[in-house]
Amino acid sequence: MYFYKVINITIVGTGNVAFHLSEIFLEREGINLMEICGRKNNLPSYFNDKINYSNNLSKLEKSDFYLICIDDDQIENISKNIKIDKHSIILHCSGSTSINVLSNNFSYGVLYPLQTFSINKSVNFNDIPIIVEGNSIESLNKIKTLGLMISDNVLKASSKQRLAIHVSAVFTNNFTNYMRIVADEILKSNEIDTDILNPLTLETSNKLKYLSSKDAQTGPALRNDLKTIKKHLNLLKGTGYEEIYKTISSKITKLNNEL
Amino acid sequence: MYFYKVINITIVGTGNVAFHLSEIFLEREGINLMEICGRKNNLPSYFNDKINYSNNLSKLEKSDFYLICIDDDQIENISKNIKIDKHSIILHCSGSTSINVLSNNFSYGVLYPLQTFSINKSVNFNDIPIIVEGNSIESLNKIKTLGLMISDNVLKASSKQRLAIHVSAVFTNNFTNYMRIVADEILKSNEIDTDILNPLTLETSNKLKYLSSKDAQTGPALRNDLKTIKKHLNLLKGTGYEEIYKTISSKITKLNNEL
Repeated sequence: MYFYKVINITIVGTGNVAFHLSEIFLEREGINLMEICGRKNNLPSYFNDKINYSNNLSKLEKSDFYLICIDDDQIENISKNIKIDKHSIILHCSGSTSINVLSNNFSYGVLYPLQTFSINKSVNFNDIPIIVEGNSIESLNKIKTLGLMISDNVLKASSKQRLAIHVSAVFTNNFTNYMRIVADEILKSNEIDTDILNPLTLETSNKLKYLSSKDAQTGPALRNDLKTIKKHLNLLKGTGYEEIYKTISSKITKLNNEL
Repeated sequence: MYFYKVINITIVGTGNVAFHLSEIFLEREGINLMEICGRKNNLPSYFNDKINYSNNLSKLEKSDFYLICIDDDQIENISKNIKIDKHSIILHCSGSTSINVLSNNFSYGVLYPLQTFSINKSVNFNDIPIIVEGNSIESLNKIKTLGLMISDNVLKASSKQRLAIHVSAVFTNNFTNYMRIVADEILKSNEIDTDILNPLTLETSNKLKYLSSKDAQTGPALRNDLKTIKKHLNLLKGTGYEEIYKTISSKITKLNNEL
């Protein structure tokens, strides 16, 4: 038989990350989403309508965690306006912001979920890596406990390591998605349905369960197949995608020399 | 009750694509993999050992289809050395090679499976788009029939459209995989397990079942968040990945202005 204390959490912010965290906090037993605080007059309609909402940062209810999910630039400033006692922990969830922006507090830390969030796409939190950092062993342990309530995959990292994780996520997600935008544009301008790329997109990521990214690399640039590259650049003429094709291809060709 | 004639296929080549096509031909009823012909003395050991193998191109058995799965540069030359009668169809399976390299034959065409193939990773052919082209209506219909025996997703495209599909596949697969190589390198040099990126990699492609690539785009470049971009470039200093970061980010930022 287990006894546990319900953990109270307040979210500051009403964006993508705030939305997805609010959904998982509502779902998990042992967590009570105390309230959400934002600048808007009302909580956006896609949030669960049972959530208490406030736009008065100076009058927040007492909570175990205050989780700041807002633009990186604003975290330090907003955190100074939240009045908390020393038993509460103030957190931000930014990948690229140092823990030190919260150092005017007694207990503070970071809870960064390594995932891409869009309002219209639900995510499964169980295997999302939650990257945590705390100002003390005590804070860190509490943040880890919170992390483990939403995911099986909690990882301690320094602010510098977290920044490296954030950069790697930009390549893995943002830049990868941009590659598909380019691919879709090329198909559209040749009157081909962009859906035909879906199996390839899925297999490209699925392969990495079985092969390392280096072992999974294929294609004309890796083979330094200059004839095919020339055909591709010919087709790309005037599209604005020639430079990006050349830059990435030349990196891949160099990779071949290293292998 | 159906009557059908078994389709005989001969593969020329012993690489990745030849291997995966041989596997699916062996699996599908109604297809008989007549033989594989290659330059090597023996068929590589990962091929099914029931396959007849020959390295004498001038003495191939009579077959309905001769499928050339070799380096693009060699297709035209090798095709001239295959003696076929006018009831047989000679095919290549290259994304970026015109159908015309086979024009010294009576019946010819293209069967290009749009997928990434590695020897050590099996693939599900059912939903792989098979891009087909034929020198005549009669050839095209036969090639379509063959395509439909291995996949539910057969698409007719001109050689120019197929080249566009091939370029788009380079962005979707080769370049995307390279983004993950960079991400893995960044993590390794910061002593972080690269597996933590797997859920993000999977979600990045999975999202595209629900959102268009443009709607799925997120991140500092799209927001033109110069402070975060500066932090990232600082971390990347000396890694050799600064240029690629800048090139792609500037394209994504321009995209924002278009949206």
